[in-house]
Amino acid sequence: MGIQDAIAGLSALLGHRLTRSKSDLDLHGRSESHFHDAPPDAVAYPETTREVAEIIRICVAEGCPVVGWGVGTSLEGQAQAFHGGVSVDFSRMNRVIEVNQEDMDVRLQPGVTREALNEELRATGLFFPIDPGANATLGGMASTRASGTTAVRYGTMRENVLGLEVVTAEGRIIRTGTRARKSSSGYDLTSLFVGAEGTLGLITELTLRLHGQPEAVASAVCAFPSVQDAVTTVIETIQMGLPVARIELMDRASIEAVNAFSGTNLPVMPHLLLEFHGSESGVKETSETFGDIAQEHGGTGFDRATRPEERTALWTMRHNAFYAILALRPGARAVVTDICVPVSRLAEAIEGTRADLEEAGVQGPILGHVGDGNFHAVLLLDEHDEDEMARARHVADQMVARALALGGTATGEHGIGVGKQRFMEAEHGDAWQLMGVLKQALDPGDILNPGKLVPPRN
Amino acid sequence: MGIQDAIAGLSALLGHRLTRSKSDLDLHGRSESHFHDAPPDAVAYPETTREVAEIIRICVAEGCPVVGWGVGTSLEGQAQAFHGGVSVDFSRMNRVIEVNQEDMDVRLQPGVTREALNEELRATGLFFPIDPGANATLGGMASTRASGTTAVRYGTMRENVLGLEVVTAEGRIIRTGTRARKSSSGYDLTSLFVGAEGTLGLITELTLRLHGQPEAVASAVCAFPSVQDAVTTVIETIQMGLPVARIELMDRASIEAVNAFSGTNLPVMPHLLLEFHGSESGVKETSETFGDIAQEHGGTGFDRATRPEERTALWTMRHNAFYAILALRPGARAVVTDICVPVSRLAEAIEGTRADLEEAGVQGPILGHVGDGNFHAVLLLDEHDEDEMARARHVADQMVARALALGGTATGEHGIGVGKQRFMEAEHGDAWQLMGVLKQALDPGDILNPGKLVPPRN
Repeated sequence: MGIQDAIAGLSALLGHRLTRSKSDLDLHGRSESHFHDAPPDAVAYPETTREVAEIIRICVAEGCPVVGWGVGTSLEGQAQAFHGGVSVDFSRMNRVIEVNQEDMDVRLQPGVTREALNEELRATGLFFPIDPGANATLGGMASTRASGTTAVRYGTMRENVLGLEVVTAEGRIIRTGTRARKSSSGYDLTSLFVGAEGTLGLITELTLRLHGQPEAVASAVCAFPSVQDAVTTVIETIQMGLPVARIELMDRASIEAVNAFSGTNLPVMPHLLLEFHGSESGVKETSETFGDIAQEHGGTGFDRATRPEERTALWTMRHNAFYAILALRPGARAVVTDICVPVSRLAEAIEGTRADLEEAGVQGPILGHVGDGNFHAVLLLDEHDEDEMARARHVADQMVARALALGGTATGEHGIGVGKQRFMEAEHGDAWQLMGVLKQALDPGDILNPGKLVPPRN
Repeated sequence: MGIQDAIAGLSALLGHRLTRSKSDLDLHGRSESHFHDAPPDAVAYPETTREVAEIIRICVAEGCPVVGWGVGTSLEGQAQAFHGGVSVDFSRMNRVIEVNQEDMDVRLQPGVTREALNEELRATGLFFPIDPGANATLGGMASTRASGTTAVRYGTMRENVLGLEVVTAEGRIIRTGTRARKSSSGYDLTSLFVGAEGTLGLITELTLRLHGQPEAVASAVCAFPSVQDAVTTVIETIQMGLPVARIELMDRASIEAVNAFSGTNLPVMPHLLLEFHGSESGVKETSETFGDIAQEHGGTGFDRATRPEERTALWTMRHNAFYAILALRPGARAVVTDICVPVSRLAEAIEGTRADLEEAGVQGPILGHVGDGNFHAVLLLDEHDEDEMARARHVADQMVARALALGGTATGEHGIGVGKQRFMEAEHGDAWQLMGVLKQALDPGDILNPGKLVPPRN
């Protein structure tokens, strides 16, 4: 019994769809973040749910770890094989099975990427709004409980997964949820698997809520004297119930980076970038009302972008902000922090982070999904400079400690993986132990993505 | 060891707040639905979370069942003590602890009722929109994953509970969630306890999302030639992204009942009742657009009610519809069914139910939260007529079978309790067994609301 026996069994099952080539192992051991490479012993490419079930049965019998793989964009090491074993790559399970236009839902396989889904939906008048930036797979996004710039309007994966097909550690295929919009029928297993990072089962199919492509879209950008002014504007906007679809913050350092990278000429001040979805007259009214609120809090240079090319330019700038920040220090490794606090405490959390960064001498422009209270400092680091890495780690720890003290969470959207396990006890207390009890009950052999999220076994 | 020893321990702990009076036991054994009375052996009135933890510790040690009690409005026997034991009545834990206006959230104890909360919020400009009809407690609403007429706009308890304090079967006090609007930090324990009907722990505190009181509210009512026409109107309304806050269906029989009860003179045709929340101009635009869509599908008598007294009259009529239906057959017992299907299948589900009712000779006007695909047939029955009760049960079974065949669920908002356990295998298959595994892991002694929701233990 062991990993090699499992690989023999998987090889018999999958033939050439079980690979051990060095390039493939290396690829599946990498992360977009700062974790060291951790390749699996083999990579499996299933094509059906039954094959996934068979893979898990073989691996459980042999005590071989199983790690799900979408496209490897997770940021906390979720998809890396720190204990070896088999990486289950869902790239061959990438079919959109059924679009139900009248019910505004879609059933699809976990390897479909966000962009591929929206391409497929283009002609239907519907779209899937959740946008974490990266072109992640929907299976991965569900497993990480991802969100992004549009969560303030459309929610996160938590609110947009109606149901799942999951292979459990017993190798059973179960279905959670239905296509009905709501249900009070038993434990909410869908929500249990969403965000479980593949530690309780592998998602083999998803049913997602879709949304109507808005009749009209408008964007706006506005500069503020301070982060506090920008945040106060956000709070009033949300309290008024203005239907903003995106409301993003960029701090001074981010704006400087973007100006240098994109050749823009924005004033070096905190900015809010917004998008409004609705009817023609609705978005006009909403953006004007927003403009009034912004002005009351010192907002200047309020600019509405209603033409598609202006909007595209604005959001391309936002999406490229990460690369713009990276370009500030060529060759640097970026560590992207991710805390989320009650919106009223956001300015405090950002200003505190800014002060910590200055004190530590670490460069870290700040970007935020400010409608949710979620923000990222993009720490630019020389990974060979141990002292700098230690100082950066200290800043990241302080960010989380502050988030928890302010009633927030260690991660708004990136998840736990191995990168944030050290904060779980502080955030959840005994509830983290309860997560371990659930893991033990559903995966007694600790086969599914071992070493991630839950407490270490005794 | 046993229930009597537990009661002795609880009596020592709680003094006069542990009662065994017949009237109190009878009250806590009743249900608003058709289940036979099942009084507990004692009723406990804790005042603090620590007392709840102590109650559970005593009961676990003695093997005494523990059943949570809000105000007893659940409809599937969730709060009745079919195995005896102690009913934990939360009426003394009814404090609103903290309203955070800027963050639009509230922390409160589980015994606060929906109406009491909104009364407390009146001056803040905020409100809690979920409205299951009955003036239930928030703890009960969370435990049942309740919703009601406004779910189409504001979601259900699933979407509006940010966090919980829960006492587990170990007597541990845990906290789930945070005040942040989103989080990817570990398993979604909040969602696991919401809808668990007190079988996994007792909720001792809730943090809820609030919403801004809308600047303007408008209502509308419209008659349709058929349920299909009404449903097609609903589908197009939702696909256009019109922000409806309520969209309710009443069938011909419900309209007849209401006319007789409220003295109204509505045409005896299927009706939609709507409410729009937004800005003055927004609700005007939305209701006009809705009027256009309705007209295309044969809608007649479209009537906008913008004055508060007109709106109140309309929704009072809707809220009284249950009593109006009851008045059709004085002395009858009402059994309220509750299925939810994808909206595109709603007309089929309703027409099928109507045909089944006619064939069975059972009276059952239909009301629906049609934006969610959720509807109720209110079966009017002579509970001493065994034959009629059997025919009604057959209709209810057919409703659920049809809901499942159409991709829906056995219960949109009433939950499982004991009333819908017989459908769990059909709806969830192996996933129901997995619910049993979770129950076993978190409550190995089967102390918490035994006999409800999960499969019977072997």
